[in-house]
Amino acid sequence: MDKIIGYIEENFDRFVNELSDFLRIPSISNDSGDKNEIYRCANWLVEHLDRIGMQNVCVFETNGHPIVYADWLNAGRDKPTILIYGHYDVQPVDPIELWENHPFEPVIKNNKIFARGATDDKGQVMTHIKSIESYLKVKNKLDLNIKLLIEGEEEIGSPNFEVFIKDNKKLLECDYVVISDTAMYKEDLPSICYALRGLAYFQINVTGPNRDLHSGSYGGCLGNPINVLAEIIGKLKDENGRITIDGFYDDVIEISQEERQELAKLPFNKNEFMKELNVNELNGEIGYSPVEQLTARPTLDCNGIWGGYQGKGAKTIIPSKASAKVSVRLVSNQNPDKIAELFTNYVKKICPNTVNVDIEYLHGGYPSITPINTKAIRAAAKALKRAYNVEPVFVREGGSIPIVNLFKKHLNADSVLIGFGLPNENAHSPNENFDLKNYLNGIKSCSFYYNELASL
Amino acid sequence: MDKIIGYIEENFDRFVNELSDFLRIPSISNDSGDKNEIYRCANWLVEHLDRIGMQNVCVFETNGHPIVYADWLNAGRDKPTILIYGHYDVQPVDPIELWENHPFEPVIKNNKIFARGATDDKGQVMTHIKSIESYLKVKNKLDLNIKLLIEGEEEIGSPNFEVFIKDNKKLLECDYVVISDTAMYKEDLPSICYALRGLAYFQINVTGPNRDLHSGSYGGCLGNPINVLAEIIGKLKDENGRITIDGFYDDVIEISQEERQELAKLPFNKNEFMKELNVNELNGEIGYSPVEQLTARPTLDCNGIWGGYQGKGAKTIIPSKASAKVSVRLVSNQNPDKIAELFTNYVKKICPNTVNVDIEYLHGGYPSITPINTKAIRAAAKALKRAYNVEPVFVREGGSIPIVNLFKKHLNADSVLIGFGLPNENAHSPNENFDLKNYLNGIKSCSFYYNELASL
Repeated sequence: MDKIIGYIEENFDRFVNELSDFLRIPSISNDSGDKNEIYRCANWLVEHLDRIGMQNVCVFETNGHPIVYADWLNAGRDKPTILIYGHYDVQPVDPIELWENHPFEPVIKNNKIFARGATDDKGQVMTHIKSIESYLKVKNKLDLNIKLLIEGEEEIGSPNFEVFIKDNKKLLECDYVVISDTAMYKEDLPSICYALRGLAYFQINVTGPNRDLHSGSYGGCLGNPINVLAEIIGKLKDENGRITIDGFYDDVIEISQEERQELAKLPFNKNEFMKELNVNELNGEIGYSPVEQLTARPTLDCNGIWGGYQGKGAKTIIPSKASAKVSVRLVSNQNPDKIAELFTNYVKKICPNTVNVDIEYLHGGYPSITPINTKAIRAAAKALKRAYNVEPVFVREGGSIPIVNLFKKHLNADSVLIGFGLPNENAHSPNENFDLKNYLNGIKSCSFYYNELASL
Repeated sequence: MDKIIGYIEENFDRFVNELSDFLRIPSISNDSGDKNEIYRCANWLVEHLDRIGMQNVCVFETNGHPIVYADWLNAGRDKPTILIYGHYDVQPVDPIELWENHPFEPVIKNNKIFARGATDDKGQVMTHIKSIESYLKVKNKLDLNIKLLIEGEEEIGSPNFEVFIKDNKKLLECDYVVISDTAMYKEDLPSICYALRGLAYFQINVTGPNRDLHSGSYGGCLGNPINVLAEIIGKLKDENGRITIDGFYDDVIEISQEERQELAKLPFNKNEFMKELNVNELNGEIGYSPVEQLTARPTLDCNGIWGGYQGKGAKTIIPSKASAKVSVRLVSNQNPDKIAELFTNYVKKICPNTVNVDIEYLHGGYPSITPINTKAIRAAAKALKRAYNVEPVFVREGGSIPIVNLFKKHLNADSVLIGFGLPNENAHSPNENFDLKNYLNGIKSCSFYYNELASL
């Protein structure tokens, strides 16, 4: 390994330049992007993977943006096969006026590289690619079998990814999936994410009278859609922060005492957290710590609301309609479709007959959890410790990464999530950046990880 | 009186033509209007009032649109003096595509005249002017003293009217104010409005974290501004439809048993009312009938709400801010400023410390009530019966007409509200119209009313 680590250090300046080249391509995947740039980015990857010695490098067309695939499978059948997943597409750049440099002209300041996609996910994808290169250049081979899958629609919800996996089960067969698209818990604290929350997202539409009415002439005996919607939302949680939907918690796996002790060790600083968000007080489900509330317990939040007059001053109407977006985050073993049914039934039950209510189930995603005592996870912990010289922490992520469930469902493979980003690197925001210290340590971590996995 | 009634009938076709001329002037008072047309309309009135024989006809400039004044005060000191109030400005015409004729090119269909301002308030103003003309032409005099005050800013909240009254108390001195700017309870049912509700209008602004946050990463321990706002709104009324603000009902005068019996006689058809609005069920404050809830009891309604994501599909954010417009309608003897204080204190009390709340008091207006046993009201009832040959009803109006309080406050004069419009004449909406039957009966009613008042 010393030679590999030496190669990484010797070639790191070039690795940074190559990451810059990758970042210069504006591979925005949503409608504000240019499809030609998506293809240019996929082709850049193909050429690069060819050059470092990957095999079977190819581009798979989908109904949307192409998926880049490559592999190196000569390590032998007794060695494990891992599937590394990443994405080359990036978020839009708006509001562009808040960027200090052009989002596609990378700039290095304070040993951080600033560009759209730096931490999410081009920088992290490159930790694997540069690690693979280092093996192939130094040892002329890998110690395990690697399949690399880099998609171009992650930022728009991977609409064509499940079909691709289903159609290519044999090609993608693997022992573990490795994903580097999450953040470290904090600086200098390498982290392994072992659980993700699921999601069920709804729109509630309330309709009252058939037109907007004068609130003077009609106020007093009508169900007002905004008032009713507010009452419904107010009844979705109780004063203990518990979600009141009948049966909502039935399938929730309680956090074990052992896990609670582990989560309690995470360096969560409540005062810093509140100060950073400028809030006076936290609340949440009674009986759980903020870390547990943020990652290991289900939640319910309104994501948007609208109805009636939103302009300046006073307009005295009873509006005909009001709507809200409401989402719940789920934990194992909750099923988003079952939750959708419970949610719909409950809202219909509590909605008064003075108005009509309609509930749209917009989106659902399963929660996931990986046992932390598997060989693959233990190997990841060892690798991170070797690279960072710090014992890594095991964290849950409050958000959702739906592809983790797709890999489990279609390939029966658990995912190992080792992220090299930092929480304050502005993923999805202006001035996105990636710390070059973590780029370097990330490449080393990947190399140690391949080494650990090979000797399982 | 027979000669006067005869004159009205003989000249009615001309009266309709003159109303058409008045309606042709697009005297829109808000920013979408043309100030030149406002002046043209005021001057049209001046010329017309001069021609029928009114005296001291003049235009008072204000900081906004001019006020037209005229009087005829030769009836003698032993005769009452009435101040007739109306307005010559009209609402904007949008959405103009829904009009069947151009809003300022009057068309007569089914004995109704269609144009902006037909019922609100030019047609009703003309009932008085044409009645005065009839007296002056037939008898060469009036039997009582009349002051006529026609303003040009009613549709924008009469921002300069109070100053004008305060500055001209002597000029405006009177025994009663007569206003024809309301609607009859239904067709062929002449109505006298004796009570108006007041208003207090608020905007509630809730601020949580200092920026929009990812609802996955941050959901679970933060006060979500939309959820909190919804909870606040949900706590403003209880399950009996009672407003829960501490002290809110302290100054409310309960409806007397006698008045409740009168209100119960009004031909309110609950099923027709619900069908017309397409609602399945009414509710409101328990213990009161819909008519009472609509006019004689205070109410609380959200007039608008907004926050977070309002677009298509799903966006998983915890928004930084959410706001709502909330108004309460008040009844005697509630004081809007006191209610504003109670409202503000209550909302602050129930708002959790997880967010910041700010309450703007946008607008307040006092409720008003006139005893129905006064001479002026009894005279109005007699006059309406003579014109319509139907016993008039006494109604409360759920909306607010703030000038009624200004006349009481500064001139110590009660207002008599006799309206000749109908509820379905589309005031403020496309295809506004005024039934010519009520134009004719209105002119006759005014004439009988002057006659009744003169013999008090």
